[in-house]
Amino acid sequence: MEIRQLFDPESSTYSYLLWDPASKEAALIDSVKEQVDRDEKLIRELGLKLKWLLETHIHADHITGAGELRARFDKQPKVAVHRASQSHCADRLLDDGDELKLGDESIQVLYTPGHTDTDISYRIDGAVFTGDTLLIRGSGRTDFQSGDAGKAYDSITGKLFTLPDATRVYPGHDYNGLTVSTIGEEKRTNPRLAKGREAYIALMNAMDLPKPKRIDEAVPGNLRCGS
Amino acid sequence: MEIRQLFDPESSTYSYLLWDPASKEAALIDSVKEQVDRDEKLIRELGLKLKWLLETHIHADHITGAGELRARFDKQPKVAVHRASQSHCADRLLDDGDELKLGDESIQVLYTPGHTDTDISYRIDGAVFTGDTLLIRGSGRTDFQSGDAGKAYDSITGKLFTLPDATRVYPGHDYNGLTVSTIGEEKRTNPRLAKGREAYIALMNAMDLPKPKRIDEAVPGNLRCGS
Repeated sequence: MEIRQLFDPESSTYSYLLWDPASKEAALIDSVKEQVDRDEKLIRELGLKLKWLLETHIHADHITGAGELRARFDKQPKVAVHRASQSHCADRLLDDGDELKLGDESIQVLYTPGHTDTDISYRIDGAVFTGDTLLIRGSGRTDFQSGDAGKAYDSITGKLFTLPDATRVYPGHDYNGLTVSTIGEEKRTNPRLAKGREAYIALMNAMDLPKPKRIDEAVPGNLRCGS
Repeated sequence: MEIRQLFDPESSTYSYLLWDPASKEAALIDSVKEQVDRDEKLIRELGLKLKWLLETHIHADHITGAGELRARFDKQPKVAVHRASQSHCADRLLDDGDELKLGDESIQVLYTPGHTDTDISYRIDGAVFTGDTLLIRGSGRTDFQSGDAGKAYDSITGKLFTLPDATRVYPGHDYNGLTVSTIGEEKRTNPRLAKGREAYIALMNAMDLPKPKRIDEAVPGNLRCGS
């Protein structure tokens, strides 16, 4: 599977364009509304057939470009998001264990809640796209949108950390200019996870973070697929 | 060879950490002075032996972290830059065709002038780090520091475009959130190169760009390896 990482500097969001080189069927994970012109152009230049517009969760910090991109492509890519979102605009509601096909390649759905109750990590051969569940040397906050630090700890250590150590970790954001990590590296070095479950919950619950600037428009916007 | 792309949002500069997984010998291409804490930490976390601090050219838009990183690592990585820079702080002045070793892997030096007269592209198996010579759907400006649009065209089309189409292109900057391209993709889609040499020269010479903000400190700073 080919992977192209894309960055939105305003929200420090990473989007990911994946495609199967044989069939040219493609998926775009976590598109950003302000970047749909760039993404449409790139997909057309590469001659890809956009099949899936995938969300790792209902975001609070940016608005998805999924609805807009679905409208721009004749072949009607399908918007997919976790079932717990109760999204009415998505074409497909996903559950843990689902498999999405790009040609003969597949993307596996791992339900990894904790940042919100809608978090999916998407796994392909050799790589996992962890949304805000697992960040490089960090993890997504758990203090809004059904966030739950205990569930986050369990998702990270009980699901993601059971993947092979060499699995590349592509996060939903990075604020330090890091682009990719590996499961082995995060197991060894992620400072938040070093002291066990209770310490993680205490650490996450003690964070006194400001409310996300765009949450009041982003969450309802994303529940409309950004349209 | 493992590749880790790193981003400096202030100057939109990409740095690249490369290493041979067998020997753990590493090179850092185009470090940024403001990011040396991040880079030192990452190199230590990965347990790498930093052997080379490579520059693609004498930059005008940011100051290198090479001198600072050389001082921070006991094993004394070598700073390397093209011979035309006449750098007095570099440990090695590079020429076209040189090979640098990381364990049994090698990095090949391609002299690709035009943005400046010190431009190197570093080639490894399957990828090329093009500095400001070739950008994604663009190319570096040629209007200062011995820049020459004709030489830039010749470097891109006569050297870089002779590499296999599947070669991944890792640029020195991107301002649109794109991270990587391929030689084949740039041959097909780079809008600046579509109309031949004379048109490229006319296009580059007609750009009425402001003087780079930091050029007066960056160029002399980089000629001192950022120290």
